[in-house]
Amino acid sequence: MKKFNVGIIGCGRIGKVHAESITYHIPNAVVKSVSDVRLDGVKEWADSLGIQNVYSDHKEILNDPEIDAVLVCSSTDTHSVISTEAANAGKHIFCEKPIDYDLGRIQSTLDAVAKAGVKFQVGFNRRFDHNFAKINKVTKDGVIGEPHVIKITSRDPEPPPVEYVKVSGGIFLDMTIHDFDMARFQAGSEVEEVYAVGNCLVNPAIAEAGDVDTAVITLKFENGAIGVIDNSRRAAYGYDQRVEVFGSKGAVEAKNDTETTCSVSTEEGVVSEKPLYFFLERYMGSFVEEMKQFFAAIENDTDTAVQGIDGLKPVLIGLAAKKSIEEGRPVKISEIEALM
Amino acid sequence: MKKFNVGIIGCGRIGKVHAESITYHIPNAVVKSVSDVRLDGVKEWADSLGIQNVYSDHKEILNDPEIDAVLVCSSTDTHSVISTEAANAGKHIFCEKPIDYDLGRIQSTLDAVAKAGVKFQVGFNRRFDHNFAKINKVTKDGVIGEPHVIKITSRDPEPPPVEYVKVSGGIFLDMTIHDFDMARFQAGSEVEEVYAVGNCLVNPAIAEAGDVDTAVITLKFENGAIGVIDNSRRAAYGYDQRVEVFGSKGAVEAKNDTETTCSVSTEEGVVSEKPLYFFLERYMGSFVEEMKQFFAAIENDTDTAVQGIDGLKPVLIGLAAKKSIEEGRPVKISEIEALM
Amino acid sequence: MKKFNVGIIGCGRIGKVHAESITYHIPNAVVKSVSDVRLDGVKEWADSLGIQNVYSDHKEILNDPEIDAVLVCSSTDTHSVISTEAANAGKHIFCEKPIDYDLGRIQSTLDAVAKAGVKFQVGFNRRFDHNFAKINKVTKDGVIGEPHVIKITSRDPEPPPVEYVKVSGGIFLDMTIHDFDMARFQAGSEVEEVYAVGNCLVNPAIAEAGDVDTAVITLKFENGAIGVIDNSRRAAYGYDQRVEVFGSKGAVEAKNDTETTCSVSTEEGVVSEKPLYFFLERYMGSFVEEMKQFFAAIENDTDTAVQGIDGLKPVLIGLAAKKSIEEGRPVKISEIEALM
Amino acid sequence: MKKFNVGIIGCGRIGKVHAESITYHIPNAVVKSVSDVRLDGVKEWADSLGIQNVYSDHKEILNDPEIDAVLVCSSTDTHSVISTEAANAGKHIFCEKPIDYDLGRIQSTLDAVAKAGVKFQVGFNRRFDHNFAKINKVTKDGVIGEPHVIKITSRDPEPPPVEYVKVSGGIFLDMTIHDFDMARFQAGSEVEEVYAVGNCLVNPAIAEAGDVDTAVITLKFENGAIGVIDNSRRAAYGYDQRVEVFGSKGAVEAKNDTETTCSVSTEEGVVSEKPLYFFLERYMGSFVEEMKQFFAAIENDTDTAVQGIDGLKPVLIGLAAKKSIEEGRPVKISEIEALM
Repeated sequence: MKKFNVGIIGCGRIGKVHAESITYHIPNAVVKSVSDVRLDGVKEWADSLGIQNVYSDHKEILNDPEIDAVLVCSSTDTHSVISTEAANAGKHIFCEKPIDYDLGRIQSTLDAVAKAGVKFQVGFNRRFDHNFAKINKVTKDGVIGEPHVIKITSRDPEPPPVEYVKVSGGIFLDMTIHDFDMARFQAGSEVEEVYAVGNCLVNPAIAEAGDVDTAVITLKFENGAIGVIDNSRRAAYGYDQRVEVFGSKGAVEAKNDTETTCSVSTEEGVVSEKPLYFFLERYMGSFVEEMKQFFAAIENDTDTAVQGIDGLKPVLIGLAAKKSIEEGRPVKISEIEALM
Repeated sequence: MKKFNVGIIGCGRIGKVHAESITYHIPNAVVKSVSDVRLDGVKEWADSLGIQNVYSDHKEILNDPEIDAVLVCSSTDTHSVISTEAANAGKHIFCEKPIDYDLGRIQSTLDAVAKAGVKFQVGFNRRFDHNFAKINKVTKDGVIGEPHVIKITSRDPEPPPVEYVKVSGGIFLDMTIHDFDMARFQAGSEVEEVYAVGNCLVNPAIAEAGDVDTAVITLKFENGAIGVIDNSRRAAYGYDQRVEVFGSKGAVEAKNDTETTCSVSTEEGVVSEKPLYFFLERYMGSFVEEMKQFFAAIENDTDTAVQGIDGLKPVLIGLAAKKSIEEGRPVKISEIEALM
Repeated sequence: MKKFNVGIIGCGRIGKVHAESITYHIPNAVVKSVSDVRLDGVKEWADSLGIQNVYSDHKEILNDPEIDAVLVCSSTDTHSVISTEAANAGKHIFCEKPIDYDLGRIQSTLDAVAKAGVKFQVGFNRRFDHNFAKINKVTKDGVIGEPHVIKITSRDPEPPPVEYVKVSGGIFLDMTIHDFDMARFQAGSEVEEVYAVGNCLVNPAIAEAGDVDTAVITLKFENGAIGVIDNSRRAAYGYDQRVEVFGSKGAVEAKNDTETTCSVSTEEGVVSEKPLYFFLERYMGSFVEEMKQFFAAIENDTDTAVQGIDGLKPVLIGLAAKKSIEEGRPVKISEIEALM
Repeated sequence: MKKFNVGIIGCGRIGKVHAESITYHIPNAVVKSVSDVRLDGVKEWADSLGIQNVYSDHKEILNDPEIDAVLVCSSTDTHSVISTEAANAGKHIFCEKPIDYDLGRIQSTLDAVAKAGVKFQVGFNRRFDHNFAKINKVTKDGVIGEPHVIKITSRDPEPPPVEYVKVSGGIFLDMTIHDFDMARFQAGSEVEEVYAVGNCLVNPAIAEAGDVDTAVITLKFENGAIGVIDNSRRAAYGYDQRVEVFGSKGAVEAKNDTETTCSVSTEEGVVSEKPLYFFLERYMGSFVEEMKQFFAAIENDTDTAVQGIDGLKPVLIGLAAKKSIEEGRPVKISEIEALM
């Protein structure tokens, strides 16, 4: 069996998750090299996984002719540049979301990828979640007929630091972007128009940073379906991640995952478990699965499961949501595309 | 429409429940007369329902030629005598459970009923519960194949007064008797052998009264199925009434009923409702339904849903369970029948 | 005990439901008279409940000095006129929803009620539903903190006849109006702005009648909370009625009611019950409860649970939703009020 | 960090599971050597995990002074002999269940372990299952008070081959033995007496082999609690593994694990997922956890989580159950111990 040599650029939390997924769960891939601009502790961690090379400059990875594929897990502002370099170097690319917040840079990245003819997969991991993948399958199998309404509940257990909010592009681009991808995935159609309402109800500092922490977003899809997403930066009971697709013949919905199926009955009531705490717990399986499918796409020379266009579209929707809340009106995606 | 004239003998809690069911829910029956040995408050209550006659002597009811049917809701020790008198008077009979604890008196009652050719229904109301009736239907429809195991969880919210335990015949005759009926109902077969274990874990005074308050009873059925019942006199979280039938093609189970479907999620966990508090709340629908079916059997001259034999069998099983726990061994029903 | 004499104007489905609730469940009220413009079958039905008088002209009821309270259950277009007449006649009034679709007529009705000083309750029965009343209690008790998001799922099992849609005022006024009331009830705040999107995905004839059959409506509340309602005229699995309130300390949600708690496990999967079929099944308890509280308000001379303003506000919201979908923009309630 | 060198004796399904758990999840242990009497395919598998040595004779492992611990995963009839040899060689031992079916051989194994002073853990993995460990924690924390009833539902998706049944010691020793361990674990007390009933309802060939395929077993515990287990060799809907502990202050129960939390609502009903298919899917997490705790016990020189006595007791209970069903009477554990 040919083993693909992989380089991981950026060894933060998600880079490490992918390295472990590949090492433990992807028999036909091996992490040969990693790089990070800050190397404290990286060497020890890399050793523990048997990773051969640790670099401070990602170009060492791109220049290594034995490297077949790279994972771009560096800071968001570098995704498009490094992906473009990697494409030019002929490497297959797994790029963490978002590709960029700048539409021009996204487009030029996708152009470079197209020109190079390499595989390109964007890290919208939730498509690979066991629950949401099952919803998709049920819908695609026609069990619930034509989709009419896609409902997504997506609430974080804690707001991020305000410093992060200031540079992240705001809730629609750092948090809801996953839900926009999920909505497209489940609707099987493109969003035409967005309307967002929101408020700052969790932490006033978020309002000072110019953002909201509680939002409801309505999406009109080309196929007539309607999407609705509700977000909060803080659910006291934990990470609330539910999806429901309602269609002409029925509905399919996924409840939260929990640590156990136990319930305790006492005089106080019947108590069951809260949702799994946060995304690493909740979506661990999906991180493994997206790696599996990325390397399967390389091996079988098939389309990746989340392609370049899938990286672009949610950013368009996010920018439309931002404009919608700023201007207090529904915004068409075509308005945003016209700015590209 | 012919309206059946009904007399209710005994106006305690259950007599009143039946009177209201008939008044409000049975269009072809009217409660004409009631009797009770203690009349305090009965007249006012009877007036509020428009009941014509209130007697202290039930014979006034039996002697009234306009009365078509009687409900025997008096104290347990009078059930067999009054039922026999009612049969002799040609009245249809709904008799609260148990008919008696004495096998000879049960038999002579059933003989009188048979001789008179009147309808006779025993008050095993749980058969008419929406959940347990559905289980029965699913099983009878063959959805789960042949029944292999019948599991009944039956726990009261509070133990009865010890004075009651002393005269009730004990847990197997005052409480489990309902579960024995349920087991027969769901198994569609007769019990051959009983093994009971039990302990006094709730209230030591119950042990002093010669009884247990926690028990597990195993039943062997003629058709090869196995029944298992677990009882407690006190479930801290309320009235726990669940049934599961496991068969060759699957299983059907009923969870507890609750006041609402609400759940509350906070940092503490996800809290849902406790079971409905006790039998009047939990089984109210079944009390109405058993009346409906009793009067339907009279009107259509069909068999009643819970016949004389259904009143006898659970007493046999209860006596076997009692003997089993006393002698520490499985006891065959035929051993008890031999005593009749 | 003083018994209130009640007249019911309009003996359609809902008038009959109320008559039975009063007869069977409200000890301090009696239905003395009923009226309907079409009397076929009404006499027989009235007899079966022991109702004394049956009129074709509701004025006979209003002119009867013994009548304390009337229930206005006639066709929607007569609600405001009859309620005004009843107020002028000094009768307490329970008026089915909506009071009217015309804001001026609503206002003049409320004026007449205020002048007469009679009790006035509007038939938004869902507030009295066991599940939704519990949600309200949990929220009011502060268990989930300040409400941030109110989510309402409200789907009918079958669309109404197109003829009805043509005269009903459309989905927002005949169906969503209940959800608008629910949103206000649970938010504890007034709606400021409405945005509605919708499509005709169930039955093209509904589009021809100028209406949608699938809709998502976003509400901005004065207290900063956000409401979101999703409607469909047809859920293949039945009547889907769920509410969730998400707040600063947690969330409370109500699932659908079902006929039983049974689930059946076979090779095919684990199958549980569909929601109760339609509003009569689902909300029967709430119809009884709203009557209880109406007569309690009369007896104790307290405010009714659903007052005149509660009849007006959902109509305002409904008209705003209609304008929103027509003009493709969010509409402020104040815009609609300015038309009054 | 000191890494423990591990040898795995027996490379069947469970030996492979443990090797992977150690390789991927136990940082302070490494599988140095494996052995199996049949080596086809073992070398390739061992290579893929980077295991250094593959032997056909397990003595090569025992003679290697660098080996700190061995996992005895060979066929059941060799567990006691190999464990004794390993103890004599001074290796820490993880022994798959059961140690043996012969009480004398179990005792001599435990004696050898005691003499050698090595760690010894028995492979009752279900104690480490997330659900059942949580039940244990809830019970130990006193949340439900004193345990009164321990209920275990344990049903396999398919019966084993009849050839296996003939040599396995029968259902009580090959299947229920896990449930006996679970009952002891959750009751926190020893079993005094056993009563078993059973039937052959799934496959007549099992009866011909002298065994039952459907059983209910009642256990009396020293602390007064009562245990009840129901088994079937075939649940049409899959692997049914549920535990409930009912106590003086409440109850805790674990439902089955499922592949997803999805439910599909259509005209047919609301369908959710069946239980995970069989023990490898259901208990995978517990296999990892038992390894973690085994190596933690070695590292910290603490007692193992499942000790020698825990390997002996379920065999005693199993033999008592067998005798009970053969003789149709309750059997005391002391009767079986007297045979040792």
